Amino acid sequence: MPEPPFLAACRREPTDRTPVWFMRQAGRYMPEYRAARAQQGILEMCHKPKLVAQITLQPVERLGVDAAIVFADILLPFEPLGVGLSYASGGPKIWRPIRTPADVDKLEHVDPARHLAYCLEGVREAKAALAARFPAVPLIGFAGAPFTLASYAIEGGTSRTFETTKQFMYTHAGAWHGFMERLAELVGSFLALQAAAGADALQLFDSWAGCLSCADYQEYVLPHSRRAIELASAAGVPVIHFGTDTSTLLELMAEAGGDVIGVDWRIPLDVAWARIGGRAVQGNLDPAVLFAPPEVLERRVKEVLRRAGGRAGHIFNLGHGIQPGTPVENVKRVVDLVHGRA
Amino acid sequence: MPEPPFLAACRREPTDRTPVWFMRQAGRYMPEYRAARAQQGILEMCHKPKLVAQITLQPVERLGVDAAIVFADILLPFEPLGVGLSYASGGPKIWRPIRTPADVDKLEHVDPARHLAYCLEGVREAKAALAARFPAVPLIGFAGAPFTLASYAIEGGTSRTFETTKQFMYTHAGAWHGFMERLAELVGSFLALQAAAGADALQLFDSWAGCLSCADYQEYVLPHSRRAIELASAAGVPVIHFGTDTSTLLELMAEAGGDVIGVDWRIPLDVAWARIGGRAVQGNLDPAVLFAPPEVLERRVKEVLRRAGGRAGHIFNLGHGIQPGTPVENVKRVVDLVHGRA
Repeated sequence: MPEPPFLAACRREPTDRTPVWFMRQAGRYMPEYRAARAQQGILEMCHKPKLVAQITLQPVERLGVDAAIVFADILLPFEPLGVGLSYASGGPKIWRPIRTPADVDKLEHVDPARHLAYCLEGVREAKAALAARFPAVPLIGFAGAPFTLASYAIEGGTSRTFETTKQFMYTHAGAWHGFMERLAELVGSFLALQAAAGADALQLFDSWAGCLSCADYQEYVLPHSRRAIELASAAGVPVIHFGTDTSTLLELMAEAGGDVIGVDWRIPLDVAWARIGGRAVQGNLDPAVLFAPPEVLERRVKEVLRRAGGRAGHIFNLGHGIQPGTPVENVKRVVDLVHGRA
Repeated sequence: MPEPPFLAACRREPTDRTPVWFMRQAGRYMPEYRAARAQQGILEMCHKPKLVAQITLQPVERLGVDAAIVFADILLPFEPLGVGLSYASGGPKIWRPIRTPADVDKLEHVDPARHLAYCLEGVREAKAALAARFPAVPLIGFAGAPFTLASYAIEGGTSRTFETTKQFMYTHAGAWHGFMERLAELVGSFLALQAAAGADALQLFDSWAGCLSCADYQEYVLPHSRRAIELASAAGVPVIHFGTDTSTLLELMAEAGGDVIGVDWRIPLDVAWARIGGRAVQGNLDPAVLFAPPEVLERRVKEVLRRAGGRAGHIFNLGHGIQPGTPVENVKRVVDLVHGRA
């Protein structure tokens, strides 16, 4: 079997077509997902490996994307860490947020092979289901990056300013680095285990690193992202290093590692690519464009493709996840446009 | 009297010291502000010109900053526009948000000289109070930029993704441009009137433009920001063009206009300055650094000064407003560090 275009692009090898997948491609915008979601909470869903496999395949069936991403959540390690995790309509809630160095010391030791075994079982089930029905479609495993996880743990949920996180980082530098080291070991080894369970590529989500100045990223974050990626890369599959709002951090993120660097919509793709040099790039359509009328959608998709210029090593994606309420037909239309069928 | 350093820096003339002021320098972090605020809502405060003058002077008295900014709110024009504005703990609420082209047509005509006369009276009172007590301290007037105002009007409040705004902009391009033209005329003439009432400089706040791709900014926003700045500049005082998260929009914002371009903390000051060329720059400390211990605070302040390199045309400021809960002594310490007294 020839190498799937998504994996070839990760390695900057030429492909017949630009591969495309979407962050949060299995999600609330999709009726078949909502049907499963209506009966249970998101954490319960993540704990059911057979359901995980089923949901992972939904966008492959419906959209014809070039990669599947295992259905899971970046905050799942918070359950065994003991900080208390639940989901409500406003997003995740961490019941016992990390506010002092003593709170870091009290965290439970997490062995991902044991405490996140159900996730690895989900990877195995999803891989088996893909192998049976879509053998040419690779599976992506993922984890949250140390900074993004630390910010959720410290803020207690989502944040606009990440002020509490930054205050902790500035004030308790020793405890901060200790916490980040633990998270780097955890997510790095968790990613490697996902590859061993069948994931063909891995993505590290540093969704909120873009709130930081370059100096802060370099001092407080980069060494820990590097460590996580080093552990993940040891598994021998491509690693995608993703963040949003990281236009000014791209060189530093590339320095931390990753075969593919995620690029959001705030920076033109060619400008970003020129800055990070010899890596593949993933992006960079604004998810809001999926709400646009056909002519605007087509214009913006073609603009991304034009800036990629057909060079080897471009994976088409959004700059962030698909929003609830997005029309499914528009997502499908993007796949067709990228595949040259629309 | 020699020209105040803030105004000299706006014109890129050399100054004895780097001028410094802070966005939201009169605000909840300050006890004397909280005392006034405890007795009334923010809109009520804005409607009292003598109170406006008193609050405008508080940070000049307490901190020794190089400029005062009139106490007001960028959303005040929403009252005469008729969209319904109130403030609760979660921020502004717009009761009748703009969701269709018909909603734009229904907006009231606003004549800022008449409908915002109380703001202009506040500018006059603040200018008179400064002239009496701090004659060397210039007064800054301000307004929200068309995009930022439109986004509040359409979202109905603050937003993380600005999805509803973008959807309106893509779907109803004609109504969007019509709305933006009205806002540009309104805020441009309002700014010019503030200069006539005594403001020595003007700032256009495009706080949320950073959510846009370069292509969207250019197509849907730039012409309207240019028009607003053109109208404001006709008053003959310097104009500061400010946004957050605009690292990739800086050239386009400079193209739209402004004598001074605001730069947030996501991009090193010298990198930003090199990109916008012959303009003054304002920034670029992360407001979260004001929560840091003294050694981190000093290091980050000196880093901004080092990157400015003593060149004419740098106004020290934060990349966004001072957060509630910020220790006043840290704000004072930044003033002293910038003035070379710490």
